[in-house]
Amino acid sequence: MDERAALALLADRLPAVGDDAAVVDGLVVTTDMLHEATDFPEGTTRETAGWRALGASLSDVAAMGADPVCAVAAYAAPGFDPAEIGAFLDGATGVCEAVDCEYVGGDLDEHDEFTVASTAVGRTDDPVRRAGARVGDAVCVTGTLGRSAAAFRLFEAGETARANDLYRFVPRVDAGRSLAPHATAMMDSSDGLARSLHQLAEASDVGFAVEYDALPVDDGVRAVARDAVDERALATTFGEDYELVVTLPEEALEATREAVDCGLTRVGVVTDSGVEMDGAALADEGWTHGR
Amino acid sequence: MDERAALALLADRLPAVGDDAAVVDGLVVTTDMLHEATDFPEGTTRETAGWRALGASLSDVAAMGADPVCAVAAYAAPGFDPAEIGAFLDGATGVCEAVDCEYVGGDLDEHDEFTVASTAVGRTDDPVRRAGARVGDAVCVTGTLGRSAAAFRLFEAGETARANDLYRFVPRVDAGRSLAPHATAMMDSSDGLARSLHQLAEASDVGFAVEYDALPVDDGVRAVARDAVDERALATTFGEDYELVVTLPEEALEATREAVDCGLTRVGVVTDSGVEMDGAALADEGWTHGR
Repeated sequence: MDERAALALLADRLPAVGDDAAVVDGLVVTTDMLHEATDFPEGTTRETAGWRALGASLSDVAAMGADPVCAVAAYAAPGFDPAEIGAFLDGATGVCEAVDCEYVGGDLDEHDEFTVASTAVGRTDDPVRRAGARVGDAVCVTGTLGRSAAAFRLFEAGETARANDLYRFVPRVDAGRSLAPHATAMMDSSDGLARSLHQLAEASDVGFAVEYDALPVDDGVRAVARDAVDERALATTFGEDYELVVTLPEEALEATREAVDCGLTRVGVVTDSGVEMDGAALADEGWTHGR
Repeated sequence: MDERAALALLADRLPAVGDDAAVVDGLVVTTDMLHEATDFPEGTTRETAGWRALGASLSDVAAMGADPVCAVAAYAAPGFDPAEIGAFLDGATGVCEAVDCEYVGGDLDEHDEFTVASTAVGRTDDPVRRAGARVGDAVCVTGTLGRSAAAFRLFEAGETARANDLYRFVPRVDAGRSLAPHATAMMDSSDGLARSLHQLAEASDVGFAVEYDALPVDDGVRAVARDAVDERALATTFGEDYELVVTLPEEALEATREAVDCGLTRVGVVTDSGVEMDGAALADEGWTHGR
């Protein structure tokens, strides 16, 4: 059984599963486990790891249109190195402070592989879910796409300082809050734009038609892409970007765009069925954690 | 640096650290990471593992006198075996249902060692902390001590069915709720009674004098103990029991004892300084996670 089949098994048994975060009684809660071998390229500092681990959970809170309250992390490593733990804390507290969330520590453990499990808790009375997109809505993305893909290539090339900079991201909490009153459906792009569109399509029982030339491709992608085909892959299926993918009525677009601090780009429209880019089917490919 | 030194480093930087759960804005949040090699003896079923992982976090919520709202877990294993995931879910949902908490799923990951990170969230306007014990208060424990130690010995002996039964525990949420209005300090006994007393003593700047004969030693301990010395160790330092250790005014004892559903035993008294059992110093020994 692969990860997606396993997640489907969970969804059958746990009605709260299926959005970026679970919704319970005015709270949203989300948890992620990250491992050195699969989630942190060689050269990732412990500060960047702390930033990204907590950032991934805060991005899920943002994708629900919720206000983060606090975040915790369980940190496991082959030894308790004070410098490494301090750097991790710098990153964890840094990303939490960037979105006005309190980092409240967690658990420490010895383990043969550096592993972090982060959890964030937020509040909202009116969460935005993956279900709710309506035919004719605009589909938009925040920020730029492919930033993490570009960072990944820089890690491969040994340019770790620039890679670490690019690899830290500000979770789109402010944008999520601004989008929430108008959004009909929303999720983050942690598995890449293509997979996000497929997941929104399935949850909302709709389709999407997007245009590649409309995508806000990060300048970093253009700098590292081998060719035009590679650029498309980095921008649409690499994932790990933690931008928001959101649907909203066309008439709300202009006012919302002004309220979103990080840029909001209309990339296409909600259709009856099928996920297409430039008129051709867009495959359901993307980041699979643990690959 | 050992685990306790690392935790002290965390406590320096994170003011919310130092109780069984962090307190933020009317919520309590706690997270734990457990690994197959260090936390689950050979023979532990995935159902028992799910039960204990979530139970450990719910015990921390109970120790704050809070009401659990929801719990999540990140589950990592060398493959996604549907039967194993299903059994884990049985345990995770089972322990949550036992204390009226909603289990809302979490994350799934491939990893070479079975690892679980669980997080529980609770609500309370008036959390009970480790600091607050007053000289002359009674010190009490819920339930019985040594149940997990007895289970551990049964696992070693290959009696896995009985061991798994003993190894599942009901987190003391109801007891915590009943104790909260009267408790001056409280924590759970996850590291054993001896270490809990030392931690309460340090946080409250007091001491303890307890009597071994007063301890509610589990019948299971007597059945597996090699001799009287061994019995004492299993009951006081083995840990992993998840009972509550609580201080409260003597005059509140009788009414509180009636309100606690799982038994509440007075084991000693709060003193000026020092942690003693039967008049001799009780060493600060106990379960160290990741040992």
